[in-house]
Amino acid sequence: MPTLRIALAQDNPVVGDLDRNADLIRRAATAATAAGAHLLATGEQSLTGYPVEDLALRHSFVEASRERLVRLAAELAEDGNGALPVAVGYLDADGPIPASIGSVGGRGIRNALALIQDGKILFRYYKRHFPNYGVFDEERYFVPGHELHLARIGGVDVAFTICEDIWGGVPFTAAAEAGAGLVVNVNASPYEQGKQERRLAVVRERAAEVDAPIAYLNIVGGQDDLVFDGGSVIVGADGKVLASARRFASELLITDVEVAAAAGGDVANHSSTTMSTSLHVVSEGPAAVETRIEPSYAPELDRLEEIWEALRLGLGDYVEKNGFASVIFGLSGGIDSALTAVLARDAIGADRVHVVSMPSQYSSSHSIDDAADLAQRCGLHYSVETIQPIVDSYLAEIAISGLAVENLQARVRGSLLMALSNQHGHLVLAPGNKSEYAVGYSTIYGDAVGGFAPIKDVLKTLVYELATWRNEKARSLGETEPIPENTILKPPSAELRPDQKDSDSLPDYEVLDGILTGYVDGDAGREDLVEQGYPADVVDRIAGLVDRAEYKRRQSAPGTKITVKSFGRDRRLPITNHFRGKQ
Amino acid sequence: MPTLRIALAQDNPVVGDLDRNADLIRRAATAATAAGAHLLATGEQSLTGYPVEDLALRHSFVEASRERLVRLAAELAEDGNGALPVAVGYLDADGPIPASIGSVGGRGIRNALALIQDGKILFRYYKRHFPNYGVFDEERYFVPGHELHLARIGGVDVAFTICEDIWGGVPFTAAAEAGAGLVVNVNASPYEQGKQERRLAVVRERAAEVDAPIAYLNIVGGQDDLVFDGGSVIVGADGKVLASARRFASELLITDVEVAAAAGGDVANHSSTTMSTSLHVVSEGPAAVETRIEPSYAPELDRLEEIWEALRLGLGDYVEKNGFASVIFGLSGGIDSALTAVLARDAIGADRVHVVSMPSQYSSSHSIDDAADLAQRCGLHYSVETIQPIVDSYLAEIAISGLAVENLQARVRGSLLMALSNQHGHLVLAPGNKSEYAVGYSTIYGDAVGGFAPIKDVLKTLVYELATWRNEKARSLGETEPIPENTILKPPSAELRPDQKDSDSLPDYEVLDGILTGYVDGDAGREDLVEQGYPADVVDRIAGLVDRAEYKRRQSAPGTKITVKSFGRDRRLPITNHFRGKQ
Repeated sequence: MPTLRIALAQDNPVVGDLDRNADLIRRAATAATAAGAHLLATGEQSLTGYPVEDLALRHSFVEASRERLVRLAAELAEDGNGALPVAVGYLDADGPIPASIGSVGGRGIRNALALIQDGKILFRYYKRHFPNYGVFDEERYFVPGHELHLARIGGVDVAFTICEDIWGGVPFTAAAEAGAGLVVNVNASPYEQGKQERRLAVVRERAAEVDAPIAYLNIVGGQDDLVFDGGSVIVGADGKVLASARRFASELLITDVEVAAAAGGDVANHSSTTMSTSLHVVSEGPAAVETRIEPSYAPELDRLEEIWEALRLGLGDYVEKNGFASVIFGLSGGIDSALTAVLARDAIGADRVHVVSMPSQYSSSHSIDDAADLAQRCGLHYSVETIQPIVDSYLAEIAISGLAVENLQARVRGSLLMALSNQHGHLVLAPGNKSEYAVGYSTIYGDAVGGFAPIKDVLKTLVYELATWRNEKARSLGETEPIPENTILKPPSAELRPDQKDSDSLPDYEVLDGILTGYVDGDAGREDLVEQGYPADVVDRIAGLVDRAEYKRRQSAPGTKITVKSFGRDRRLPITNHFRGKQ
Repeated sequence: MPTLRIALAQDNPVVGDLDRNADLIRRAATAATAAGAHLLATGEQSLTGYPVEDLALRHSFVEASRERLVRLAAELAEDGNGALPVAVGYLDADGPIPASIGSVGGRGIRNALALIQDGKILFRYYKRHFPNYGVFDEERYFVPGHELHLARIGGVDVAFTICEDIWGGVPFTAAAEAGAGLVVNVNASPYEQGKQERRLAVVRERAAEVDAPIAYLNIVGGQDDLVFDGGSVIVGADGKVLASARRFASELLITDVEVAAAAGGDVANHSSTTMSTSLHVVSEGPAAVETRIEPSYAPELDRLEEIWEALRLGLGDYVEKNGFASVIFGLSGGIDSALTAVLARDAIGADRVHVVSMPSQYSSSHSIDDAADLAQRCGLHYSVETIQPIVDSYLAEIAISGLAVENLQARVRGSLLMALSNQHGHLVLAPGNKSEYAVGYSTIYGDAVGGFAPIKDVLKTLVYELATWRNEKARSLGETEPIPENTILKPPSAELRPDQKDSDSLPDYEVLDGILTGYVDGDAGREDLVEQGYPADVVDRIAGLVDRAEYKRRQSAPGTKITVKSFGRDRRLPITNHFRGKQ
């Protein structure tokens, strides 16, 4: 049996930055060549980044992608890596691209993979299946391909597929019919809780179907509001994991895999019942390696560490890829901004994190102390700004009361942070959690101010779990616990009026988060939730708050839609929604 | 030849408000019966409203739609309108709907039309073609139907189709093959400039193809950030417009149309090359009318009146459908807030419009006078709030300068408006125009504060055109010109620093808007624009500003994407976009 040395470049591309992404591919090729690899695969749209969204409809961008691919092929050869077959993900289109936005089908835009060798493009494979749910919109942009390409490398027929192809399945059926000895599946698959298990299950299913190993490659990194978590894996025909890459970090995974030799000839050139196939011969000789590389296995992460790493990477890459030197946000002494502070420190380092304590007349002394304590434990830039004189100057101008005054305090804080941001260039972070955003327990243009909200997908109960886990981790490493115990133990409060507590307005967070999981993340209606055991009056109240949060957004944020996310699941609801609740 | 009396209910539904929408349908049926109509058609998803977006994925909502349809059938009979065949648009699904969010295909969700008669549902037609571009996302939700239904009404075989079906065309080919005497096409088609001409062209094309009249029905009304503009039309086989309904207003269009009789028998029950077809006989006798109704033709609108009506309806329905009693915004004396004020007065009446003059130390006296003048001309609630003491209270707390102070002034105004909104329940309007939003010439959390931005899709040059047009219209009616001449004539300025003018930062608006039309609305890259004759340095500067506006949004608004719209065209660009410009 031939032994193929496969290199998978689990890299972190940036959408639109073609030169930077090409450099990543060139570096991976140099390392793979040095390691004696027979084949290098890079991620879905590794050259353009993922997701390109409407850039796919700009003819200048598609042209730039195609030209950069040709240039990359030449560069790989110039670098001395010409002999290595390299699979590159990029954006393509059929024929010349008209300089106007037309229908998708008419333009023939492709989510493509090119196999490059000796400075030439051996073939271009076009993705067959498109995800069009949750955060995905690929039906808007791409037309499907109907031809599967196999490259005979070291006597092994290797089929190439892209991401959703492994869930849709047709290219794998075609690969099985063509007798592929190995299937490469390159992905840009964003993180969701529990997704790695589902990925492994489908990879095993396809490996059994094709009766061949599958090399599943994922990219890594934060891109806007998505986090790609890596976790590339090679699975044998029998479902055994032959090697795995780390989660949430770049890695060049190199593995030796024993693979069935091709039957020979060009038998793969036939029309299957599913897709036509074509074979491209790179090298017939049976691939072999001098010394087998020890297979590399990534450590498994427990649930909270996995979530922490996703949040840390998402925040860190948002800051880095957008070129911010520093972040700023308000530190209240409460649990949300405390967790945000530790995340920010872990993501970009304490010296780039600026926190501001902005007490009002309703702030308790322990809040101010807890904020100062945390800033000191974490070594953050800490300052105190008093808001009461500013609030008073508003109250001297207009006659308002009650909730309007509560919101005003939050907005004065927001304006102070924005002023400091404008002055110094900090990125403002909004430290709100998912539970409070879902029920509208935050102030638009107030504490909701910020360019990135690191824990907006984290329910309040999970905020507590993560805070406790992070402190325990510090303890286990012999480090100072970053979050003051009092911040974790005290009852949560917005401190916008005397003796206010979250529990004045909301049920216990255990109950709230359970209902939100059903009503916002899931598809549960009122009756479903009551059947699950939640009291009808509480369900009605929370559903009303969620619907009313919509109303508040409607009152004050143009075009805002509900897009509360559950790690990648994007909900789109019309703003006017009389069905779900009363105003 | 039979003469069919066709009633088209050009109504204004609300998404999710099933009872309200059912009432509209019942009232139309009563009027159509009274008028002796043989057939009543209502709009696409007339029962659920359009677009339902992710409500389509909630099993409780799909069930509610199906149940409400059955109840509506009974109500129509109870109302004494049982004999009238009524086409109703609604949301359906194949079989029972599992109480969980699954893949779209697996759930078989349908964009459906039911023909109701005698309290029963004669058939359910499922939309064949889905729009999935611009503001449309239907591929996310629906599976296509493959059966065309014809109803023999008064001896005429009438085929029923939904919206995109007329652009995609397959159901019309099937209707032609089945020998349909009339095709009804029910729409929820949002307004774009020049779209009515494109609609009429495709209706004529299909009429020629089927060799039969087409009844094209559209809904009307603002729904969130879409405006449906009505303009329903009946076109003969020869392309002649037989009747037309008004734009931007509800109307029950009743028309007598001579239609070819069916060949008889059930010849329509056959499998065509395109879709299977089935025939449902309602009545065989040749339809006739006692006295022909005079055909009704709507007045054509000139370009600026059409745009004005779209803006007025969009704003008015946003206010009404969301249940706001009043609106509030800042009146600067400049052209944008002046146009917004007149639009708001035209949409909801002067007594519901509150405007606030908020001069700073840099506001010119003419600005304050122009604002007061406009408020007085239009009869709006007018107040003055001084911002300087509040600005000073911030400056006493933090050391900032330059742009940070300019933005602070705008944010103090935003906070004042939000405080008044929270206190009195007004909807805040953001009066920014498309040119300034596109290049980032506005302050996030400042003048961009608001729940609805009525002129966000209007380029600055169009703002001037509309202001001039509206004043001329008043003059022609012998009314007071609502906008002071000085507001139109003076050079635009943000007045955030001494002697500031827009032209300090931006090129002439003619040039700016030309470049934006190519770069933002269109697909033009740098080279395309230079070829069009714009100076390369100006193109680079404006493209840089557009890209930098993205950067500003990135710094301060979580998850914000570029969605600058061109009357319905929704652009989605990734936030991180190194390709398009430098940071």
